[in-house]
Amino acid sequence: MPEYKAPLRDMNFVLNEVLNTEQHYQSLPGCEEATPDMVSAIMEEGAKFAERVLSPLNQVGDQQGCTWDDGAVITPEGFKEAYQQFVEGGWPSLAHETEYGGQGLPESLGILINEMVGTANWSWSMYPGLSHGAMNTLDAHGTEDQKQTYLTKLVSGEWTGTMCLTEPHCGTDLGMLRTKAEPQEDGSYKISGTKIFISAGEHDMADNIVHIVLARLPDAPEGTKGISLFIVPKHLPETLGEDNGVSCGSLEHKMGIHGNATCVMNFDNATGYLIGPANKGLNCMFTFMNTARLGTALQGLAHAEWGFQNSLVYAKDRLQMRALTGPARPDKPADPIIVHPEVRKMLLTQKAFAEGGRALIYYCAQLVDKVKLAEGEEKAQADALLAFLTPIAKAFLTEVGFESANHGLQIFGGHGFIAEWGMEQNVRDSRISMLYEGTTQIQALDLLGRKVLMTQGESLKGFTKILHKFCQAESDNADLAEFIKPLVELNKEWGDITMKVGMKAMQNRDEVGAASVDYLMYSGYAVLGYFWARMAKVAQEKLAAGEGDAAFYQAKINTAKFYFERILPRTRSLVVTMQSGADNLMSLEEEHFAF
Amino acid sequence: MPEYKAPLRDMNFVLNEVLNTEQHYQSLPGCEEATPDMVSAIMEEGAKFAERVLSPLNQVGDQQGCTWDDGAVITPEGFKEAYQQFVEGGWPSLAHETEYGGQGLPESLGILINEMVGTANWSWSMYPGLSHGAMNTLDAHGTEDQKQTYLTKLVSGEWTGTMCLTEPHCGTDLGMLRTKAEPQEDGSYKISGTKIFISAGEHDMADNIVHIVLARLPDAPEGTKGISLFIVPKHLPETLGEDNGVSCGSLEHKMGIHGNATCVMNFDNATGYLIGPANKGLNCMFTFMNTARLGTALQGLAHAEWGFQNSLVYAKDRLQMRALTGPARPDKPADPIIVHPEVRKMLLTQKAFAEGGRALIYYCAQLVDKVKLAEGEEKAQADALLAFLTPIAKAFLTEVGFESANHGLQIFGGHGFIAEWGMEQNVRDSRISMLYEGTTQIQALDLLGRKVLMTQGESLKGFTKILHKFCQAESDNADLAEFIKPLVELNKEWGDITMKVGMKAMQNRDEVGAASVDYLMYSGYAVLGYFWARMAKVAQEKLAAGEGDAAFYQAKINTAKFYFERILPRTRSLVVTMQSGADNLMSLEEEHFAF
Repeated sequence: MPEYKAPLRDMNFVLNEVLNTEQHYQSLPGCEEATPDMVSAIMEEGAKFAERVLSPLNQVGDQQGCTWDDGAVITPEGFKEAYQQFVEGGWPSLAHETEYGGQGLPESLGILINEMVGTANWSWSMYPGLSHGAMNTLDAHGTEDQKQTYLTKLVSGEWTGTMCLTEPHCGTDLGMLRTKAEPQEDGSYKISGTKIFISAGEHDMADNIVHIVLARLPDAPEGTKGISLFIVPKHLPETLGEDNGVSCGSLEHKMGIHGNATCVMNFDNATGYLIGPANKGLNCMFTFMNTARLGTALQGLAHAEWGFQNSLVYAKDRLQMRALTGPARPDKPADPIIVHPEVRKMLLTQKAFAEGGRALIYYCAQLVDKVKLAEGEEKAQADALLAFLTPIAKAFLTEVGFESANHGLQIFGGHGFIAEWGMEQNVRDSRISMLYEGTTQIQALDLLGRKVLMTQGESLKGFTKILHKFCQAESDNADLAEFIKPLVELNKEWGDITMKVGMKAMQNRDEVGAASVDYLMYSGYAVLGYFWARMAKVAQEKLAAGEGDAAFYQAKINTAKFYFERILPRTRSLVVTMQSGADNLMSLEEEHFAF
Repeated sequence: MPEYKAPLRDMNFVLNEVLNTEQHYQSLPGCEEATPDMVSAIMEEGAKFAERVLSPLNQVGDQQGCTWDDGAVITPEGFKEAYQQFVEGGWPSLAHETEYGGQGLPESLGILINEMVGTANWSWSMYPGLSHGAMNTLDAHGTEDQKQTYLTKLVSGEWTGTMCLTEPHCGTDLGMLRTKAEPQEDGSYKISGTKIFISAGEHDMADNIVHIVLARLPDAPEGTKGISLFIVPKHLPETLGEDNGVSCGSLEHKMGIHGNATCVMNFDNATGYLIGPANKGLNCMFTFMNTARLGTALQGLAHAEWGFQNSLVYAKDRLQMRALTGPARPDKPADPIIVHPEVRKMLLTQKAFAEGGRALIYYCAQLVDKVKLAEGEEKAQADALLAFLTPIAKAFLTEVGFESANHGLQIFGGHGFIAEWGMEQNVRDSRISMLYEGTTQIQALDLLGRKVLMTQGESLKGFTKILHKFCQAESDNADLAEFIKPLVELNKEWGDITMKVGMKAMQNRDEVGAASVDYLMYSGYAVLGYFWARMAKVAQEKLAAGEGDAAFYQAKINTAKFYFERILPRTRSLVVTMQSGADNLMSLEEEHFAF
């Protein structure tokens, strides 16, 4: 039976030893309550909930899935009760404003809880996850009235929320959406249309569901500039229990995340209310999408961590063959497979991505705090840096998360393919993360096209300056040289390639697309390289000072070495392919792909 | 509804234009009947069967799976009838000897049929696939009596076969197996033990199932030198219908290939007969394993081809966003997604692996013919070359097949995650290929440890000489220079690295393991580079001569360019990582992987 243990030691290392979270919270208004003791207590409670309540439901969710019964959706056994406990524990309100019933704790603290909850049971975590998205949207764009009516109920967890964007003929290209909103005399709207892929669109966990829906006003301009945002509750608050023309038409049969209900939602003259300005819905949505993308980046980390934990247990336990250097356990009929270099490589790859990904996400979470709470230059810088790092975190971490989940499965050999071990579920569940909230390809265009090239490289410089400063400060640190030297080279190369691709793109826009995914992955390896070097630095300092658990710090340094020698060199291929030009992709005629 | 169309044009290109199959058959004794007309007619019939009968059952098989009912196994709807048609069409007997009812056609011709059958419906193809393995084992090691009794029934397709190796506590490490064989006075044996992961172990398609079982004699030495091979039929031929103590205990619930029954098989004093010499079972088994590995390599090609075909249709059909260079279809609400460079990259990656993989497999299939039918030096060379190429074909093609299946899914965006499109089934079905018949890691140790280093590099030289000759012959061909130049460099580098790794391995055996998977993948990219260059050469010659369909040949050249500019550079990372040494994998203490 697979298990999840919250990696509190590592989480604390990143929070306290690498990212100085105490100082971060002290420097921001409104974070005073997030003292180290408070953070620690919340993490421990969150860990218990994730380990004891959610983790045992992970396989149940996969096996039972959700069932549709004449419009109603029944979630897997135990999901509803777990949600009740979650609400009773006050978890939904953690990082929301006190005036709407929240606990007013920083967003970054919420992300710690999301990590544990999501790693224990990703499908389950999506129910509160979608609520969180709806809450952020209401918080940013709703009227005071809307907040009092809807946000308070979402914050308390009594109701849940969704985001309704996709339609059968448009996912990425929201400009084509057709759902209509007819204005009514009372200021409300009648919403009609069909939305697909609506996660948590219908279920049995809460009394009401608040749908945030993208639709078109009758006089709206075509394309993305004619989209507005609406609140469309399953039941209108004034007539709870009555039908509001919102129904779940069916559930999708899908590869994974079976425990989460992926709904076709039909809106049939449903009453809704405009949020934010008319025809500016997509802009409002982007607020949400950025947090959702960071939330999905977390999924990459989740599946890497989960795969690592469970394949590590197996690698130590499974006896098969002897070590290449001779029997390691002559007392046993065979050696545990962890003696084999290639098994270790798969374990270390998962570990490097999980722990490196953790550092990147916690770092981004601090930027989210700053964007929300800091002011002036500090806020602007955090905003720009977050905009740069978000597509990298989302696409890169989900790609390597899927890779990691597959390594976890592979370590089990044939048993990895068998459902009971849970490794194949981890692979299936992780596969969606590269698709939703913008595919890897869309994130790559966002990064290279919109973020980097449209700012003439300023967006990239925001990060490479930080990397440069770090390298410069450590330039005399001989113990760190094996990490600093390749980072210095990479940092220069990163700028050079960006310039070259930018020049080519001025001649031919396809050059952006042709370089984009390789560029994003290159950037991801570079960013994680920075965090691994920072972690190695902290570990070396602790070792030198004789502080704490030497084995823990030594393992950090070993893993950093592994990352720099075995993972970072992947940039050597990407640097070639991303500069190979658009011609090798574009010159084949559409009708000549197959004969 | 996903579909499969046999790529006859491309199959013929590889067979006739690249590999000169006519000449190959003419040069071998016993292949006289395989004339071009005969080959072509068989391919066309095979294509019809695969497209019309098997392809429509592929999704059915996934959705229904197999069901276990008190020891009996019911295959998905239509599977049994399709098998009946397969038998009536004489397909099981194609590549088997005429004296046992076969058609005496070459093994390489059988592989063409396996490709089409397997790509249309991999799960179904495994039933005759396992029979084929049992037949080859009986053919090579059975007595005349055993052949007359069992082989004839397998050749006719009346019965099917299995290979029973794995036990719960041992898969890779067969030396630990416990199944017992007690000699009886009549020369037979009583077989007792439990085998797992037995593909096609029980089903409703045939009257009898011939299990080829690995077991231990009472006085057998420990480990791999004490394993013998037995025929254990479900029903004894003399008492058909009566129980022989062979039963299916349960079916595995697994990630994919749901249409194939993966059985736990219990042998309870079942009557069996020794095949081959006592205690030499594993040696006999290797005969089978090599063909099984080539059969699994085919699975990599199958999922790449299937993913390519179906994602190509979608990429041309799905309208979403505009081309980066401006609207390509202003008459439509959006452009088909094939206009996007990154979509094309995913299509071309699948195409390059499918078509390149086809060339590699057909080449290996000719070697199989030569090992079987040629003599003296020609046979010995073919044998050595096949031994070198088999782990590469198995592991490399299944790894890139899985990658390709994932690209196919990715092109569908969110829809790729939904069952009805079939793309996620293709991913799930493909995942097993890197596990069974020896994982990628085991193939890599076989290649680098057993094949290359144990022959002091002779095994590698067998291939690099061929590559060298080809490059030398084309050294003045300016049109081919873009392919020849990198191959020449790669060929030298390949030898150099092998030497370096070999030197390090003399100090520390773990260096072999630490380099092995990267070495195998490097070798795979190099081998496919050779075949892409050969295909480009043929295409250029045809274009120059104005022969045939120019668009087809131009597409070949474009795809070769794509391969050399976008795929082959992956070796640039591998060359670094495989030389980074064992220390970064081995130095972390087992107990310090997690805290």
